[in-house]
Amino acid sequence: MGGTRTHIAAVGSEGEIAGRVQFGTCEAADASAFVAMIANAVAELDASTPAIGIGIGAPCANASTGCIEAATDLPWPSPIPLASMVREATGLPTWVTNDANAAAIGEMMYGTARGLENFIMLTLGTGVGAGVVVDGHLLSGSRGFAGELGHVRFPFAANRECGCGRKGCLQTVASAGGVVRTALGMLADDCRDSSLREMDASTLTAKDVYDHAERGDALAREVFEFTGDCLGSACAEFAALADPDAIVLFGGVARALRFMERTMRRAFERDSLHLYRGRVKILESSLPDADAAILGAAALPLYLCNDLK
Amino acid sequence: MGGTRTHIAAVGSEGEIAGRVQFGTCEAADASAFVAMIANAVAELDASTPAIGIGIGAPCANASTGCIEAATDLPWPSPIPLASMVREATGLPTWVTNDANAAAIGEMMYGTARGLENFIMLTLGTGVGAGVVVDGHLLSGSRGFAGELGHVRFPFAANRECGCGRKGCLQTVASAGGVVRTALGMLADDCRDSSLREMDASTLTAKDVYDHAERGDALAREVFEFTGDCLGSACAEFAALADPDAIVLFGGVARALRFMERTMRRAFERDSLHLYRGRVKILESSLPDADAAILGAAALPLYLCNDLK
Repeated sequence: MGGTRTHIAAVGSEGEIAGRVQFGTCEAADASAFVAMIANAVAELDASTPAIGIGIGAPCANASTGCIEAATDLPWPSPIPLASMVREATGLPTWVTNDANAAAIGEMMYGTARGLENFIMLTLGTGVGAGVVVDGHLLSGSRGFAGELGHVRFPFAANRECGCGRKGCLQTVASAGGVVRTALGMLADDCRDSSLREMDASTLTAKDVYDHAERGDALAREVFEFTGDCLGSACAEFAALADPDAIVLFGGVARALRFMERTMRRAFERDSLHLYRGRVKILESSLPDADAAILGAAALPLYLCNDLK
Repeated sequence: MGGTRTHIAAVGSEGEIAGRVQFGTCEAADASAFVAMIANAVAELDASTPAIGIGIGAPCANASTGCIEAATDLPWPSPIPLASMVREATGLPTWVTNDANAAAIGEMMYGTARGLENFIMLTLGTGVGAGVVVDGHLLSGSRGFAGELGHVRFPFAANRECGCGRKGCLQTVASAGGVVRTALGMLADDCRDSSLREMDASTLTAKDVYDHAERGDALAREVFEFTGDCLGSACAEFAALADPDAIVLFGGVARALRFMERTMRRAFERDSLHLYRGRVKILESSLPDADAAILGAAALPLYLCNDLK
């Protein structure tokens, strides 16, 4: 469940995806309508092999209470007791966790991070989330809100207002909306020619900026170079928290890693404490599209049994 | 083992301190001389009840290699294979860990943090160290360098050079030397009367500033109010990493908590993400002087057996 789209899949015990459905999260008028859409999708997918349980990755989800708490990237008011609502609507045991944590679990069980005991998964989508794995353990914290790295503030974003009500959060630069803000700022400040000027500024998306970068537009590429520089600088500080072997990028903006990687690496080496320089890999998720989050959410019952007792 | 002083104690299995010795770390001309001083102290303390092992908390110590790596707060060059050197000099099995981690273990086993599963221990001394406990587990990281929060950089310290070669580290404000820098800066920028002006600026210590604050000097108190504001702002970002129940302060500068607490709390509530506001306690270590570090270091063999297998 993301701020923009919700993906639902039937997943087998070896991580194989047997069927999937998706819809726009905002298509539901409220949380009850959203849960009804989930229940319909589950009924549709469930026809062939009965499910043993449901795992959900959702923004600002508290794994211990099963609630979405104070989510700033959702269209409906929080808290939402999502686990109990879905359990009631489907009759199936249901677990929830933070969407970024679900992605980190998926990446750790089936993707790039397999075998890594120390890594930070950054999900760059509608918002910026993180799953932080240290010493083989996904950090949860007192109420499940460890690793909200999208809301750590940095000087490079000091003037950008965030949906959380503060200024300077990493999310204001490294999310899809952040990429658009950077592009619009550059288009306004810079009189250079750019194919992006042919676009309608009011509907410009991060995908548009990516497409223009792909086609060689210099300004569009600089947008991602700036984003990479900010990400590298942010990860330099995050390294001091977690002493990771790798930073794994996931989500829509991560697909532009080839345009961000050089500046991200450079900024990391420039800004990190000597203890971490040259020691941290920057990797892209190896799982296609929403699969890391889907597989991680589906693996929740399994992972929770092994780790969170 | 701190950048300034080294404390050695004989500790019983229930955390009782049977005898202790201390000396200035810099009294040793090099690491070999330092190890010889440790061996002498151990021999002296060991006379009554033979020790079963030695635990050492030291700056930039890597628990997995037993080495001090690239310490910026020590007078001798790194790396120093401290565990093997002490083992050889004393004939006793020896473990090392980061000094702040040792303090966090001590606080968790015998002090304020007993029973807390999620807390951040900040040691405010010659440097600023941290031990981060999440979900009941002290973060270690890929090479034992998780939780180097003294070297996370903040705008409030942007112009201050750090011993690590960068600018803006929390340590440049919240260490003993940071307090002195703040005091000297305020004395230079502010023409108010202050009893601190009677001191020799070249030998001013954080303890002097504390003594003047105790006696009611307004400028000396403002030095700690500024330090508290910076600490609160920093902890607001750290909360997003660890979702802690408490921040526990330890070390020389922490003794001034009563002058820092109001501004630290205010800055935390002002700067933290809504998820953490009103949820995080600010506590002072309940263990006297260096006891948290000593007890944590002594408990290392026990803790490592339970947790780090």
